[in-house]
Amino acid sequence: MPNFRLLIEYRGTNYYGWQVQNKTGLISLQGKIESALSRILQEKVKLIGSGRTDSGVHALALSANFFTKKNFKAEKLKTALNALLPNDIVIKRVDLVSKDFHSRFSAKSKVYRYLILNQSERSSFLKDLAYFYPYPLDIKSMIKASSFLIGKHDFKAFVKAETSKTKSTIRTIKNIVIKKIKETLFNAYLISIEIEADGFLHKMVRNMVGTLIEIGRKKISPQQIKKILASKDRRLAGPCVPAHGLYLVKINY
Amino acid sequence: MPNFRLLIEYRGTNYYGWQVQNKTGLISLQGKIESALSRILQEKVKLIGSGRTDSGVHALALSANFFTKKNFKAEKLKTALNALLPNDIVIKRVDLVSKDFHSRFSAKSKVYRYLILNQSERSSFLKDLAYFYPYPLDIKSMIKASSFLIGKHDFKAFVKAETSKTKSTIRTIKNIVIKKIKETLFNAYLISIEIEADGFLHKMVRNMVGTLIEIGRKKISPQQIKKILASKDRRLAGPCVPAHGLYLVKINY
Repeated sequence: MPNFRLLIEYRGTNYYGWQVQNKTGLISLQGKIESALSRILQEKVKLIGSGRTDSGVHALALSANFFTKKNFKAEKLKTALNALLPNDIVIKRVDLVSKDFHSRFSAKSKVYRYLILNQSERSSFLKDLAYFYPYPLDIKSMIKASSFLIGKHDFKAFVKAETSKTKSTIRTIKNIVIKKIKETLFNAYLISIEIEADGFLHKMVRNMVGTLIEIGRKKISPQQIKKILASKDRRLAGPCVPAHGLYLVKINY
Repeated sequence: MPNFRLLIEYRGTNYYGWQVQNKTGLISLQGKIESALSRILQEKVKLIGSGRTDSGVHALALSANFFTKKNFKAEKLKTALNALLPNDIVIKRVDLVSKDFHSRFSAKSKVYRYLILNQSERSSFLKDLAYFYPYPLDIKSMIKASSFLIGKHDFKAFVKAETSKTKSTIRTIKNIVIKKIKETLFNAYLISIEIEADGFLHKMVRNMVGTLIEIGRKKISPQQIKKILASKDRRLAGPCVPAHGLYLVKINY
């Protein structure tokens, strides 16, 4: 059976995350797109996503693949899907891929970005799209601290306590880029924190960003992050920042 | 009486334009801000805006001033206003200005920007914030055509027929900047058309952009715009593009 891959952009505000929920009434992105696909292809379709995203988290290019018995042109399916899906979900590409391609297992690395709206007043345009944090942040300290997170580590200190009991919490962070952005279109001042890793644990980015903000506020020193990492103790890290600043940017295969 | 100036940013989507409407139930930006001001200052406040914006049009920095008998600190008023106003209206600055400052009459020039989302698929993030136009546009032709609009002209061909009957339609366009923008935060490809003039007529920018799009589509030649301008005939210009791509960027005093 042919294997097709979708590249999906979405604004996560109105969805209960990527994953199909068992409770009725909770609309997930996966569920919404599977329904549209099933309606177009007139067969039950099961999407294999590159990973979950929490409620409120956005995606620029989540990857999801599915197998189908039906024959169709990728470009036509894209048009049909975008016509059927609501405005906050956009299929950017549809591609025929090899039979052994698997959105999750074939992934070499993922990139997440967190946007902090760092200015004195809120933005009328970026509500739900960036975390409004009006206090000054020392970006140099944040960059210094982030360098200690790069590499293969046990990230247990940055994971929800329940999650870390059963599975391995060792991951490899390949790169972290922290920069100030002056967004001219909406006249907004942001700090962007982009993290590439071979995999992410539940709330890992949001807990790390919360810790980096404490460092930017000079509540803790950049060196302190080494101790937090070594402690494997969630209580020593900073608070979890809200979901609406987080974007799944890219999956590398 | 002290004269205070507000610099106001707003997302125009949910408002019936800047100007207070006579019909009940139509919520204007001016009305919303005057109510908040009156509630804080405990006196009736009348805002003098730098000009009207239509329903759906946004502003990065509209200027509005008011006179008050009350004594207060500008910074405190800003905080109180932002706490009271909804998320889609933000007071960026409050300043005490000279008694003869008038938001409309003191203006030397205004800058408007129009955003065209020029890519094959819509954006899940920029709905209501840019006009989605998926067909290729030749930006060089658009820039060439725009050069013929710069200067002092009678812009009757770009004004709603009813409007142009009573008032002068002569204005001076000081500058037009058209450029492609790759918006990295939301992964969007845009064309921005920024126009500075000593004043704007009703729907002038939107009619001009509609005409420039026809030129970008190669339906009419860049030189043709000279004839349209000289004709003073609205029927020869292009269609009016939607309000939600338009931003009042700046008022120069």
